[in-house]
Amino acid sequence: MNGTQDQRSIGVFDSGLGGLTAVRELVRALPDESVVYFGDTARVPYGSKSRATVTRFSLEIAHFLLRQDIKCLLVACNTASSYALETLKARLEIPVIGVIDPPVGVAVTAGPPTSAPRRVGVIGTQATVTSGAYAQAVERLAPGTHVVSRACPLFVPLIEEGWLDHPVLRRVAEEYLGELRDERLESLILGCTHYPLIASLVQEIVGPQVRLIDSGAEAATATAALLRRRGLLATAGGESGAGPRHHFYLSDERLSFERVARTFLGGDLPPITIVDQTDLPWFERAFPV
Amino acid sequence: MNGTQDQRSIGVFDSGLGGLTAVRELVRALPDESVVYFGDTARVPYGSKSRATVTRFSLEIAHFLLRQDIKCLLVACNTASSYALETLKARLEIPVIGVIDPPVGVAVTAGPPTSAPRRVGVIGTQATVTSGAYAQAVERLAPGTHVVSRACPLFVPLIEEGWLDHPVLRRVAEEYLGELRDERLESLILGCTHYPLIASLVQEIVGPQVRLIDSGAEAATATAALLRRRGLLATAGGESGAGPRHHFYLSDERLSFERVARTFLGGDLPPITIVDQTDLPWFERAFPV
Repeated sequence: MNGTQDQRSIGVFDSGLGGLTAVRELVRALPDESVVYFGDTARVPYGSKSRATVTRFSLEIAHFLLRQDIKCLLVACNTASSYALETLKARLEIPVIGVIDPPVGVAVTAGPPTSAPRRVGVIGTQATVTSGAYAQAVERLAPGTHVVSRACPLFVPLIEEGWLDHPVLRRVAEEYLGELRDERLESLILGCTHYPLIASLVQEIVGPQVRLIDSGAEAATATAALLRRRGLLATAGGESGAGPRHHFYLSDERLSFERVARTFLGGDLPPITIVDQTDLPWFERAFPV
Repeated sequence: MNGTQDQRSIGVFDSGLGGLTAVRELVRALPDESVVYFGDTARVPYGSKSRATVTRFSLEIAHFLLRQDIKCLLVACNTASSYALETLKARLEIPVIGVIDPPVGVAVTAGPPTSAPRRVGVIGTQATVTSGAYAQAVERLAPGTHVVSRACPLFVPLIEEGWLDHPVLRRVAEEYLGELRDERLESLILGCTHYPLIASLVQEIVGPQVRLIDSGAEAATATAALLRRRGLLATAGGESGAGPRHHFYLSDERLSFERVARTFLGGDLPPITIVDQTDLPWFERAFPV
């Protein structure tokens, strides 16, 4: 076994089940890696909560995942990435990847070469848009780029209701996205893990010339690149030769969990454990100052 | 001052801000009473969470409100009333009123006298409907009554988005409630604190012959009757003569809190405190066995 290889799991968390769209991409990109996923179903959604609260929840979950012996942490939640990424990076000793910078890196180079400033769209929850995290990342990576952001708070409830082909979803999408047609965007970042499930509808409304960028998929690609760069990839077949072993943790049982999880993951579910909430330590106890 | 009068506050809680519709009715019915309200904005919504989790959250909040010296507890959340009311009644020494039995008591006597079994409709969140709490209360209070339940999970997000007059709300309401038109209902219980805000639309869809019953308003009426019966009403003007003093506690700041709160409360807001979450003890610490 190569000494630079690492059989520990990749930790992934989200406020709920949406982050499984990122897990799907991660497993596709890195079929030998084991994934430990935490979905905070007891406190979902994060999109309407404050920076302080989202940061606290994120630290609690990171602390829990560290005890599962992870080698890096993918924050698959756009709200948590918007609010808590810098704090997580400062507090944890393992690499932490969010879902903001990777899609922005793709967006600011999308489309044909041009001397005019690029035009990038971002859609997400109210908190993600209010935080300004995407706009700030764009400005940092490609100053002068034009950014148009639009909060789409009803998309998640509609997707979770299973109304993917329902005329109401189309009507809501028209209302949220219709005005983006006039913005001459080169790309549109899907800044919420649920949105890949309605990508074709979004594409239809904004037009075929706009490149849609899946934030979770780009974060999965960035995670793969980081592990490769640092020599932290797992050996094919694993130490035992039995292949990767995934495990999902949830902070609450969820009605119709299996249906929703399969929709996001697009395949069979690994073992699932419901975490007693007393196993999620408060910030103060998890990270004593 | 009459020895049977009681200047302590009435405690009210909900998963978020919807319970303020019940507070509005409470203040109307009992203008001399002080109200302490707790909205669990850090963990809203409860409607998709499990019985164990909702019961745990409810006990934590009850414990917090007891420390504010309340004389009774109105559980203004339909999900918490569905899942946690019996536990709260068993654990607390003050009277506990939920939002299930009061509207059911009205529903099973609604309409003209008849020998045929009455027909009662109930709409609410997925958890409220799945719990069967309303159907069980109807069967207990008037065995043989026909009950039709319908979960309407998109109503809360649409109301919180402020789309009260939006065609999408009407389209969703038609989808959820259209089939109820053929049920020949005498009454329909609005089994969620948000729904009074769309009562006129609901009435339009189910027809004018159906009596709509506001669960929060009926619970407020029941609270007033209970305090009167037990001689626990406050003195007019209060001990200091300064009138009632209300206070609201929230477990998280909330985007557009004031707009939403005023919509529900229909008036000015009292002082508001954001409660640090370490002040919400876990079940085990709050209620040591």
